[in-house]
Amino acid sequence: MSTNTWNRHHVLSLADFTVSEYDTVLQTAASFREVLSRRTKKVPALQGHVVANLFFEPSTRTRSSFELAAKRLSADTLNFAASTSSLTKGETILDTAKTYLAMGTDIMVIRHREAGVPDAIASEMDRLGVHVSVLNAGDGQHEHPSQGLLDLFTITTLLDSENPRLELLKGKKIAIVGDILHSRVARSNIWSITASGAELHLAAPPTLLPKLFADCGKDRPGKLFLHWELEPALADADFVMTLRLQKERMTGHLLPSLREYHQRFGITRAKLNNCKANVKVLHPGPVNRGVEISSDLMDDPEFSLIQNQVTSGVAVRMALLYLIGSGKA
Amino acid sequence: MSTNTWNRHHVLSLADFTVSEYDTVLQTAASFREVLSRRTKKVPALQGHVVANLFFEPSTRTRSSFELAAKRLSADTLNFAASTSSLTKGETILDTAKTYLAMGTDIMVIRHREAGVPDAIASEMDRLGVHVSVLNAGDGQHEHPSQGLLDLFTITTLLDSENPRLELLKGKKIAIVGDILHSRVARSNIWSITASGAELHLAAPPTLLPKLFADCGKDRPGKLFLHWELEPALADADFVMTLRLQKERMTGHLLPSLREYHQRFGITRAKLNNCKANVKVLHPGPVNRGVEISSDLMDDPEFSLIQNQVTSGVAVRMALLYLIGSGKA
Amino acid sequence: MSTNTWNRHHVLSLADFTVSEYDTVLQTAASFREVLSRRTKKVPALQGHVVANLFFEPSTRTRSSFELAAKRLSADTLNFAASTSSLTKGETILDTAKTYLAMGTDIMVIRHREAGVPDAIASEMDRLGVHVSVLNAGDGQHEHPSQGLLDLFTITTLLDSENPRLELLKGKKIAIVGDILHSRVARSNIWSITASGAELHLAAPPTLLPKLFADCGKDRPGKLFLHWELEPALADADFVMTLRLQKERMTGHLLPSLREYHQRFGITRAKLNNCKANVKVLHPGPVNRGVEISSDLMDDPEFSLIQNQVTSGVAVRMALLYLIGSGKA
Repeated sequence: MSTNTWNRHHVLSLADFTVSEYDTVLQTAASFREVLSRRTKKVPALQGHVVANLFFEPSTRTRSSFELAAKRLSADTLNFAASTSSLTKGETILDTAKTYLAMGTDIMVIRHREAGVPDAIASEMDRLGVHVSVLNAGDGQHEHPSQGLLDLFTITTLLDSENPRLELLKGKKIAIVGDILHSRVARSNIWSITASGAELHLAAPPTLLPKLFADCGKDRPGKLFLHWELEPALADADFVMTLRLQKERMTGHLLPSLREYHQRFGITRAKLNNCKANVKVLHPGPVNRGVEISSDLMDDPEFSLIQNQVTSGVAVRMALLYLIGSGKA
Repeated sequence: MSTNTWNRHHVLSLADFTVSEYDTVLQTAASFREVLSRRTKKVPALQGHVVANLFFEPSTRTRSSFELAAKRLSADTLNFAASTSSLTKGETILDTAKTYLAMGTDIMVIRHREAGVPDAIASEMDRLGVHVSVLNAGDGQHEHPSQGLLDLFTITTLLDSENPRLELLKGKKIAIVGDILHSRVARSNIWSITASGAELHLAAPPTLLPKLFADCGKDRPGKLFLHWELEPALADADFVMTLRLQKERMTGHLLPSLREYHQRFGITRAKLNNCKANVKVLHPGPVNRGVEISSDLMDDPEFSLIQNQVTSGVAVRMALLYLIGSGKA
Repeated sequence: MSTNTWNRHHVLSLADFTVSEYDTVLQTAASFREVLSRRTKKVPALQGHVVANLFFEPSTRTRSSFELAAKRLSADTLNFAASTSSLTKGETILDTAKTYLAMGTDIMVIRHREAGVPDAIASEMDRLGVHVSVLNAGDGQHEHPSQGLLDLFTITTLLDSENPRLELLKGKKIAIVGDILHSRVARSNIWSITASGAELHLAAPPTLLPKLFADCGKDRPGKLFLHWELEPALADADFVMTLRLQKERMTGHLLPSLREYHQRFGITRAKLNNCKANVKVLHPGPVNRGVEISSDLMDDPEFSLIQNQVTSGVAVRMALLYLIGSGKA
């Protein structure tokens, strides 16, 4: 594995990822994907290491993916769920993290409903001069870097299964559709896609896509476009990424109705007619069938990469844990 | 281990189990029981395999038993509990199962409060042409096959500890007592016991034992009898299986009072007087002491097989996981 | 490891611990602390053993510490949390313990909000003549022996890192400050410290420190003193142990206000002026910052041993699991 270009101790955001960092993750994940196709899907890479999943916000899907990735690297895992924790006893989040540090945790995988918590914990660890690594597993509306990387891995391995790399996106048109304003997944994907030479088109109702998102495209290799209707984003698109719609948004009067949303921004087979012939659709899950995407399209392996994304997730998270875990002397 | 007769990919119900399938499970479990008596109670049979416990209905006891069985086969385990899951985010059950499939799960152990959910997931997996196996860990009032098999293992190893097999039940009289109508445990036991040459006697108040249960005995090697009082079921019985009484039944006006229920259908030492001299009592647990069974009888090792059932549970679940897990190329 | 003096099958209380038992735990923990400093922090000592964490009262911190200790000894772990358990189905606590026994559990780590539960389970296991061991992980206001031992390990390794032993406390002055009445941590520490030749000073408001605590010092090598104000306890102290203040105490009218409590009994840098120059402060966690201890003092590595305590916890719990687990034939 060519890990010679990896110097990153924490993975908190994709905003400053370099091309060689993207490529190192993609290539490491590709080698682990090969491990996952074996009968015995384990390697001893992180034997004796401890990965603590500190999920201050509940998430079975992402937690299971990280847990499985850690176990397949032979690490020991600890699960922390906020609801049964000392947080209810008044302990601060930093104190909780320091407790897991003191127990001997090597890597902390952190999810929190407020943006910035993984950064704050990583800063505290650095201030203390300790070797623990922090991996952001989703913080508020900020970022979800492992999701961005697994989406990238899903797309690039489709384009070159043996040698996935960022430059494969050059010249591709990618659309991100849906509740971009509130989506940490969208933010991470915006950074990775604009780091390549792709054209990125964001499409959402105006309430869910403020103009200031145009700033994300400044000084990036790729071009960024904003649309308040779906059609121009889909025209000639190679990939369409739909986002989960939090039903809570309805109560905030940001949307008229789920039915109208689906009619205007839901992805259906008919709406894909103006895309490239071999267009593929992604969704980070869990899916509200018939809202963000029509149920039949979601299940159609000709178009849907949704299951591939889940599989990619384990390989990419193995890569991230391996890269930040094995960097230690 | 003579597993040459095993072709079953999922274990969803005992309704169509063959004699040779029963015997394969019993003999495989017997060999694992030997492993469990060693100091180091592990075998590498499922190293690198992933067993996901998808418990949409909470159950510590059954989940722990499956988890331990999987760990003793050196599998990696993932636990999913509905309360902290994406289900609250609107994802369908099939989508949850497909997510665990895509992560690389080899065996899904599924419990759900609605009958048919494990079957539906297994059908979907078969439709997709994937190699994942589904094990029903209790679905609504339908079946709980691993419980039926552990009860069978408990009884047959008592009759021939070295060579447990279905035909040992031939000529035995077995009573099942209690809330048969609502019991998935009863249903699975009815299938296994009537598959042998035993006499099976069901006893319950009429509200908990509709006449249509007589149909379960049609075209089966064993004979099935229904009783709306306890005494004829217990007369000369070799084994008495009591069932858990859901206290919620009271509110449905199906029962007069717990006290009266215990008086009429609760198993006590006195009521065992008309059974065979060496009669044994079983209960799937958890027990309402003093309701389904008197507290002193439950703790009397001369009569009670309740602890043996729990121990059998781990060996039988190891056998099931091994048989369906090692069938894969 | 000099474990030749270890005959204890359960660890329920420190009240009757002998000097040689304390020293065996301290020395075994010291050898495991060395393991924890290696890159691969695992030993195969309890391979194939099952450690069940039966936490009838939720606690992420202590459960994670025991879970990690067990995993580092290569044991398999099962976690039981009361909220998702059969307890809600009416099963008794002893029946739950016997179920885990029957599954093949070797060591039960038990926490319960009522004093005496671990003792009751241990007695039942002994009555049954089985080899399972019980480790009290905190029972009501009674004891928390592993916490007492980790505090002792933290202090004695500071005094002699290579050879921690009880006699190092001889002549030291140790203060325990706070809600002593309701603290199982205080009780376990009172037993260990008075077993040494140290001077132990308890300080709390009269409502949280009844006179009868003086009885704990009778016929013990160390001397015990009670104070209803902080100053005499701190004068020339070598170690100050603060206790967590349950905020619920306020509603019981045992305390005027958190602010006044902090002013009178909270530990601050200023109040340490009358202690020995190299005084150290301990707290079992989780900490209410600014109540029991000032926030800056808690984070000051010159004074605070709080992180060391957490690290000691894993080593001491490995020692306890190893000592009671490897005693079996």
